[in-house]
Amino acid sequence: MMRCLVQKKTYLVILSPLLLFALLRYWTRRATTTVDVGPGQSYKAQNVLKERLQNVQNSYDNIPYVLKESVAGRLALNVCVCEADKKPAIDLPFAQVLFPRVWAQDDFHTAFQEAELAKVKSRRQQEYNSFQQRYQTPADLLVIAEANSPLQYPTQGVEVRPLKTIVIPGLGLKEKHRQLHTVNLTATLGTFDVLATVDGVSIRGQGVMHMTLSSRLLSTLNRQLQFVTYTNTLFHPRTADTVQFETDGHQSVFTIKVGHAVIPKLYHSGYTGEYNISSLVTIATKTFLRYDKLQDLIDSIREFYPTVAIVIADDNEHPQPVMGPYIEHYIMPFGKGWFAGRNLAVSQVTTKYVLWVDDDFLFTSNTRLENMVEILEKTTLDMVGGAVREATGYTATYRHTISVEEGGEEGDCIHIRNGYHHVIEGFPNCVLADAVINFFMGRTDKMQQVGFDPRLNRVAHLVLQVFDACLP
Amino acid sequence: MMRCLVQKKTYLVILSPLLLFALLRYWTRRATTTVDVGPGQSYKAQNVLKERLQNVQNSYDNIPYVLKESVAGRLALNVCVCEADKKPAIDLPFAQVLFPRVWAQDDFHTAFQEAELAKVKSRRQQEYNSFQQRYQTPADLLVIAEANSPLQYPTQGVEVRPLKTIVIPGLGLKEKHRQLHTVNLTATLGTFDVLATVDGVSIRGQGVMHMTLSSRLLSTLNRQLQFVTYTNTLFHPRTADTVQFETDGHQSVFTIKVGHAVIPKLYHSGYTGEYNISSLVTIATKTFLRYDKLQDLIDSIREFYPTVAIVIADDNEHPQPVMGPYIEHYIMPFGKGWFAGRNLAVSQVTTKYVLWVDDDFLFTSNTRLENMVEILEKTTLDMVGGAVREATGYTATYRHTISVEEGGEEGDCIHIRNGYHHVIEGFPNCVLADAVINFFMGRTDKMQQVGFDPRLNRVAHLVLQVFDACLP
Repeated sequence: MMRCLVQKKTYLVILSPLLLFALLRYWTRRATTTVDVGPGQSYKAQNVLKERLQNVQNSYDNIPYVLKESVAGRLALNVCVCEADKKPAIDLPFAQVLFPRVWAQDDFHTAFQEAELAKVKSRRQQEYNSFQQRYQTPADLLVIAEANSPLQYPTQGVEVRPLKTIVIPGLGLKEKHRQLHTVNLTATLGTFDVLATVDGVSIRGQGVMHMTLSSRLLSTLNRQLQFVTYTNTLFHPRTADTVQFETDGHQSVFTIKVGHAVIPKLYHSGYTGEYNISSLVTIATKTFLRYDKLQDLIDSIREFYPTVAIVIADDNEHPQPVMGPYIEHYIMPFGKGWFAGRNLAVSQVTTKYVLWVDDDFLFTSNTRLENMVEILEKTTLDMVGGAVREATGYTATYRHTISVEEGGEEGDCIHIRNGYHHVIEGFPNCVLADAVINFFMGRTDKMQQVGFDPRLNRVAHLVLQVFDACLP
Repeated sequence: MMRCLVQKKTYLVILSPLLLFALLRYWTRRATTTVDVGPGQSYKAQNVLKERLQNVQNSYDNIPYVLKESVAGRLALNVCVCEADKKPAIDLPFAQVLFPRVWAQDDFHTAFQEAELAKVKSRRQQEYNSFQQRYQTPADLLVIAEANSPLQYPTQGVEVRPLKTIVIPGLGLKEKHRQLHTVNLTATLGTFDVLATVDGVSIRGQGVMHMTLSSRLLSTLNRQLQFVTYTNTLFHPRTADTVQFETDGHQSVFTIKVGHAVIPKLYHSGYTGEYNISSLVTIATKTFLRYDKLQDLIDSIREFYPTVAIVIADDNEHPQPVMGPYIEHYIMPFGKGWFAGRNLAVSQVTTKYVLWVDDDFLFTSNTRLENMVEILEKTTLDMVGGAVREATGYTATYRHTISVEEGGEEGDCIHIRNGYHHVIEGFPNCVLADAVINFFMGRTDKMQQVGFDPRLNRVAHLVLQVFDACLP
């Protein structure tokens, strides 16, 4: 008896660590599935959709048509050229004002030697392809809804968070009576199941990527279809699953977006009945070679806004101290440039809005930051540009529109023109444009997200950012 | 004759400036339409879609069902609670390893006094509503395709750049013969037209927001529908127009995304057959109180990568110079913190990838940056985490998964667990996770876009960024 007990204890002693080890391994390794995160993933979905597109194209090619030139001219040709206007034969006074000449800039072809240009273009194309593969999802692809299909289904707006479950809304089958009504569903990044079961409906494939539902009664099948769920099982933080929903002779396709919800950055505005500028706004600037002007700027700000924070990016060769309450001075390596400086300053802002100024600006009693805040608080705009009065007395707003023309492989063409799009309702002194002067207030979260590219260097009076911008 | 000539000249002289002025006014004011950029814009589209959803919901409510508990449990309840596990009754050895206890952190409710919490919540809700209005577009709303509709139309993938024109693909009508076949189109942010005209089709509303097309022959109407164009006329850099496409007794809705194309940031990689680490990677770090360790780090990097750029964000109270080739030293105000430092350093990177290190790390012969670059070059991942061997010999990867549970008004709940999602195909030593240790390489454009919030302060060993991340 004793020997048996000892033996049993021995087994227990030997087995326990093994059991423990097995349990530990099981707990710590949630899934041993492999996932392909290579760039080829989106091709599967593309192929499904391409096939359907080809089927949808009917042959009306025999029916003639007459081109409407006025419309044809507006369509993107996928080729655009950055070309300057020729200089006029006669140089009239005020010619540039009355008949502004288009000047063009195409740095790409001039930045490289002839010999290396071909290689650079090829490399650029590869980089662009990789970018597109990372950026696009099946939710961007063209899908056409088939006419006269007995299938009812959601065409947009279905979203699921990664690895979570949702009920798919709007699925239905509306057909004439037949012996057996059947539908099936197929996914590639998740599985189907049902939230509830309905008597009289046969379901195959609960919990897998292909599910079939059938019933003799159409009404019970439709009731069951109200309970179909989708669970994302292959992890990806931002993609879309292509779901095929089929019945005899008909097939529909829709996408379920898979992704994290956007986590908003919300700012505490310190609102007490009127706009608290110090809580809402940080003033940011970059300084180089003119500490005296910078000090004049600071003094002028303090006359009207004694406690607003001022962030200063400084790339002087021999930096001097810049001190004072609510002043934050950042020292950069010498000559990093305006864009690096702007990106730095903006990266440090903790208030809801950031106001950009140049280090040679001066605030006056007309510099009413409350007006800019008002516009950003009351509208969906990202940025408000101001006006800068130069020593000559001329007041510049630099408002421009930016039009981007598709250009195919060689790249797009950006057209920048003086002017604006529309006046803004409720703010008659404010117009909607694409570019503003370098005195502007913007939403910090948006400006940090878009940023200023430190690879660029100088000449940034015209702030070319693809925001909503509004100027007086 | 002379008098007449003089008079005519006078008229000419008087008229010319007026004419000039009129022309100038016309040229400089492209459009006098006003646009409403207030937060209410998306409601119009929402109302159209809500109506349709209600019509689509059929009454099957009388048909009973039986809930499937296993699935019901997986659905988001829109309520989640951040609660820690209770302490176990018996404190077993290795308990935390075998049965890790869940700890919870809910700063929001503890950060404010009871009295002000209600006000803060209300203000937070307002800010969140504004955020959603800016962020959402009609392309996010739920749309259900009607069954048995004779209309054929695109359900996704139709995009137009602001103020540009496209041909709408896939429009069609498939119905039985009738006296007159008619369809009409309505938009809210743009106008319709036709690229070409087809004999036998009557078109009303070319160039406006509502267009009707009719023909006695179905085939000619369908041929005409192949040439329908949409022009965005109300400027917005990122929205969607809701298009209603109707025929007698049937209505379909689809959206056309309006927005700028994504302008990719492409980097020149200096590839010459093998990865050029100095061209591809910048090493970034933040330093505080330990210049000696920082120098050890720099020396260890230089042993293996003599020319790679190192960006150092320094928030010491009394900064000392840190010098050497390819070293970029940024001085911050005292004690700005880790997140501000990281955001600063990352904002200055001009290479394709950025490698984050702590100032007390050391490179060894096992620190093969080429391996990390390989993964980022070959996959769609945004970030690769490494492993850090501590003085004790223990090697940490800190890999975690992050699960976000919807929580309704109170906010969502983030669940952070040890572990990973999947192994990565092609890279068997690499797993897909949501969080990595603070030794990682990431795509610069993505990291700059997401950023590190300078409002946060310390304790950032676990890098909680919602990227694709892969760790060894």
